[in-house]
Amino acid sequence: MAGKKVTVVGCGNWGTAAAKVISENTPKFNLFNPTVRMWVLEELVEGVKLSELINTTHENKKYLPGIKLPNNLLAVPDLNECVKDTDLFIFVIPHQFVKSTAVKMRECGLMKKEAVALSLVKGIMILDNEPVLVSDVIERELGIPCSALSGANVANCIAREEFSEATVAYTTRDEGRLWQRLFDRPYFKIRCIKDVAGIQVYGAIKNVVALSAGFCDGLGLGSNTKAAVMRIGLVEIHKFAKLFFPNTTEDVVFESAGVADLITTCIGGRNVRCAAEFAAKEGKRSWNEIEQEFLNGQKLQGVSTCHEVYEVLRTHDKLAEFPLFHVTYKVAFESTHPSELIKSLSTEELERFE
Amino acid sequence: MAGKKVTVVGCGNWGTAAAKVISENTPKFNLFNPTVRMWVLEELVEGVKLSELINTTHENKKYLPGIKLPNNLLAVPDLNECVKDTDLFIFVIPHQFVKSTAVKMRECGLMKKEAVALSLVKGIMILDNEPVLVSDVIERELGIPCSALSGANVANCIAREEFSEATVAYTTRDEGRLWQRLFDRPYFKIRCIKDVAGIQVYGAIKNVVALSAGFCDGLGLGSNTKAAVMRIGLVEIHKFAKLFFPNTTEDVVFESAGVADLITTCIGGRNVRCAAEFAAKEGKRSWNEIEQEFLNGQKLQGVSTCHEVYEVLRTHDKLAEFPLFHVTYKVAFESTHPSELIKSLSTEELERFE
Repeated sequence: MAGKKVTVVGCGNWGTAAAKVISENTPKFNLFNPTVRMWVLEELVEGVKLSELINTTHENKKYLPGIKLPNNLLAVPDLNECVKDTDLFIFVIPHQFVKSTAVKMRECGLMKKEAVALSLVKGIMILDNEPVLVSDVIERELGIPCSALSGANVANCIAREEFSEATVAYTTRDEGRLWQRLFDRPYFKIRCIKDVAGIQVYGAIKNVVALSAGFCDGLGLGSNTKAAVMRIGLVEIHKFAKLFFPNTTEDVVFESAGVADLITTCIGGRNVRCAAEFAAKEGKRSWNEIEQEFLNGQKLQGVSTCHEVYEVLRTHDKLAEFPLFHVTYKVAFESTHPSELIKSLSTEELERFE
Repeated sequence: MAGKKVTVVGCGNWGTAAAKVISENTPKFNLFNPTVRMWVLEELVEGVKLSELINTTHENKKYLPGIKLPNNLLAVPDLNECVKDTDLFIFVIPHQFVKSTAVKMRECGLMKKEAVALSLVKGIMILDNEPVLVSDVIERELGIPCSALSGANVANCIAREEFSEATVAYTTRDEGRLWQRLFDRPYFKIRCIKDVAGIQVYGAIKNVVALSAGFCDGLGLGSNTKAAVMRIGLVEIHKFAKLFFPNTTEDVVFESAGVADLITTCIGGRNVRCAAEFAAKEGKRSWNEIEQEFLNGQKLQGVSTCHEVYEVLRTHDKLAEFPLFHVTYKVAFESTHPSELIKSLSTEELERFE
């Protein structure tokens, strides 16, 4: 028995780190075929094809430099070859490319009917002002079930085998067990829950709260205030999840994909740093300029998510129930002074309770 | 109608800050008598009685220097005089003095039967290896209902009117409304829930998690790891609350007394700083020495709570269900190397799930 064949769709920073984790596990279980394929969108790195560089040096010098990759990890530039025979697909590409990639995979006609998928993509998509789960897009385009993995997972730290945790939200219990075996390592502990929608909404929208938290830093506010803003953010994330995916439960909060990911994202990370700069300059530096200086021109996920979340809530006439998301949008996009973030929360009104 | 008379039992850092908040509110509602009394355990400050100093300068130079207190806040050194006529008692003294103070208050024979109390005391007590809520001690000794208030509340920040939140857990809905009116300010927003036990357990045991988080800092571990430790800590706090107070619900997590207080406590604060030093020195500096250097010899709450929690769990044969609390105890008290904190979590075992 050859065991299930695994393909990682994506070769970026997180994709390569995840592929390393998986490649350490596949040889340990008869359940899996030891070879793990990683689909590489070919590009030249120092004059050499990236896939060749990975396969000869066992390092992804472009996206995960300095980390030795297992020999049983094989970079494959041809998407069709990746699709053929694969039983387990792991998606880890930017969310804007998920649909087009899935369409190509389906159209090559080589997909196994009994394959299953897992999304490591952080983000939900907004289609016609409705939030859509990345896992649902994959399910729909490929016609196979798709689970999700999310957590407080800085890719470089996992690549260096620093202790981390992640949450798998599974479509069926059996798939949960499968993904847990594929990913669980002593330094990367996997816990499984059922809430496929919840962990994806948290994974996407935490970046909006990171902007709010970054504004607090930029305004020089103390720890009481920042903790209050993070708490309100947590409540609004959860309310958003319940509003659009009513099966979301409280379970997700206690998981790595819940409170832990929110904490790391709001304490460090690019969204917080850029938002702090934005607030410190009283909104007078553009996001473009800040992205240029801090991220070499890469785009900040929190900024686009903030805009999308605002549009969704506005269309559904729900802005009043999300005061933090609303004021964060106004600060980020409508020249509202950053100090308004706190002023808008400092009401005379008593909070109602049951 | 004179309105309900309020007495703050305690005049420390948090007590004085709370008394300031209250004294700003009482004149606004006919419901309350404008004068707020603050019981002061008399001592000499620069040769002057503390109560006189507060009443003449309207500042508590000893415990909250630099903050102007409202004129309607009256320091009263005589406990009996405080008890007489008081309708609303707010307890904010170190938890080891709660019982003896309550006994004195009862024995003076001046207590109003229809009085009610609120505990701002952080901490639960351990009596015969059973955790007992501070609010229950007050209820039992005084024979009146006792609610609780807790949150991400650094006293000096609230005194400076930096935006903060707190949670009131009420015995009855009407009392919840009363305490909310007494405390809610635009810079100090009060949310009310029913879970009197939950918020007190969280308020006490978060300090144990702060030690664990501090050990991570001292070991130089990254943000994935610290977030994982804080998450496991949250789960163990909640499990502890459910174990000894089965009516605890998930509500508390979303409140200031839940996730927000845990975050501030684990990010900054004395427990984290001292624990970081302890781990950085590989446990070779004693807690005494560290407390001497960092806290002028004051005792670290996390250290005693860690010991108490361990004893409770050991007596109930529940240590195996609390791996983080257990290893934190071993590092803090049994010369276990701090790196064991993470090693003990890095298991080969797969986490079970439903």
